[in-house]
Amino acid sequence: MGRVTERRKVIRIRDGAVSARPDTLVAEEPLEIRLNGKPLAITMRTPGDDFALAAGFLVSEGVLAEQSDLQNIVYCAGATVDGSNTYNVVDVRTAPGVVIPDITLERNVYTTSSCGLCGKASLDAVRTTARWPITDTPPVRLDPTLLASLPDRLRAAQRVFDRTGGLHAAALFTEDGELLDIREDVGRHNAVDKLVGRALQNGDLPLSRAVLLVSGRASFELAQKAVMAGIPVLAAVSAPSSLAVDLAAETGLTLVGFLRGSSMNVYAGEDRIALRTAAARG
Amino acid sequence: MGRVTERRKVIRIRDGAVSARPDTLVAEEPLEIRLNGKPLAITMRTPGDDFALAAGFLVSEGVLAEQSDLQNIVYCAGATVDGSNTYNVVDVRTAPGVVIPDITLERNVYTTSSCGLCGKASLDAVRTTARWPITDTPPVRLDPTLLASLPDRLRAAQRVFDRTGGLHAAALFTEDGELLDIREDVGRHNAVDKLVGRALQNGDLPLSRAVLLVSGRASFELAQKAVMAGIPVLAAVSAPSSLAVDLAAETGLTLVGFLRGSSMNVYAGEDRIALRTAAARG
Repeated sequence: MGRVTERRKVIRIRDGAVSARPDTLVAEEPLEIRLNGKPLAITMRTPGDDFALAAGFLVSEGVLAEQSDLQNIVYCAGATVDGSNTYNVVDVRTAPGVVIPDITLERNVYTTSSCGLCGKASLDAVRTTARWPITDTPPVRLDPTLLASLPDRLRAAQRVFDRTGGLHAAALFTEDGELLDIREDVGRHNAVDKLVGRALQNGDLPLSRAVLLVSGRASFELAQKAVMAGIPVLAAVSAPSSLAVDLAAETGLTLVGFLRGSSMNVYAGEDRIALRTAAARG
Repeated sequence: MGRVTERRKVIRIRDGAVSARPDTLVAEEPLEIRLNGKPLAITMRTPGDDFALAAGFLVSEGVLAEQSDLQNIVYCAGATVDGSNTYNVVDVRTAPGVVIPDITLERNVYTTSSCGLCGKASLDAVRTTARWPITDTPPVRLDPTLLASLPDRLRAAQRVFDRTGGLHAAALFTEDGELLDIREDVGRHNAVDKLVGRALQNGDLPLSRAVLLVSGRASFELAQKAVMAGIPVLAAVSAPSSLAVDLAAETGLTLVGFLRGSSMNVYAGEDRIALRTAAARG
């Protein structure tokens, strides 16, 4: 875990007083993800859990869905001019017979696709690539009091944030509020990819009874990652976007935002939230 | 600006009380950026300032550097199956003679490049693609008190955040603390691209005497965007990453983080900060 943070000299100014001292920063380095030897994506990430990050990324993209889809993941030595291993290039090998989909790009990505895009088209793409529908039988049912307790548990479990202030966190909880796993990364999507990738490696996909909590906002991409992993509930400490709400409504994902103190907003899938005032339903 | 926010039904839970009401969300839709007719990138963005976003993105990628590099930008009609204009596809036409660089991808992007990547390689890529060095002559010199006043000015100027809580903001200030421009977007990089793109359209690049303030963290990519626009000072309300600090140190960018109240940390380029305690220099 040595590369999760790095030390740099910093000049601190506090109410006019100036001091020079070393400071702990969150580490950020590029990771190139190769699929069966072919470069596919580069993400800026906090080093660590790189294999899980690569696996989770490929779950989000519809390449991997089960533990058996994955043959192995290795760091590529010799990817640099001098032949050294930077531990910044990983190659994911799929098992024989795994069909690689024509990867559709909804993200901040380069592409040669020429399709005309709109929100609706993106939603269609997600719906068609999801390997499973969200199927929690019987439906997950969460008490708001339990949901409200999760952000504090997330913060208590965060290791790096208190030192650097620079990391996004994502955590998986059981429907009873038990912490299953937590990941931190300089990139919000990476933290979720690391959770999902580890679940794939452990044979735990789909995560059909889990609650995914993210420390920031709920973007379309985070909602998409939840859906691709079969997660029924996404809760965010901050605001969701319009497209995240639309995707949640279309796929049956429960989307909770502004989860702070004893308050929260439920934007979609409110059937999974045990509301005490029946009149507010529907 | 109608599409900057959208209304959705929400179930609000406040201390056990449940109510259903409409809520204002930040709008998020994909934007496909085409370069001379060829699809290049897709970004999830808040609609509005789309031409500036596309232009600024291409400044960051080293395609555009001056107003005269740009021939025009248009929305592509007929990009969807039914031939309608979604206003989610823009085509940027470069002026005759503009050489399109082999675009290097440091971001969360898909690529067919096969180079081995490490932090150093990325820094090299940025250094070689920057059209100008950061040249503020005489050097910009900022009083910490002035810097400390900028976040409040940013927040006062933000229009959408108070309603949605879902937007990142970025602003350009003069060295005297005057607000030049502010942009908000669901994507932190988009807000900066919109600022830089507008500056390109106005013939204001390089922004060699401007201060760029961002509402969140200072990632490598944001530092990279500042350098590509020739901006000498990047200030962030939250933490920088290690690679952002490295890039700032190598390119001569002044990088300020944790700019809160009367406090701040200076991670690189402290010569541009008027420190009162000379002993802390060097």
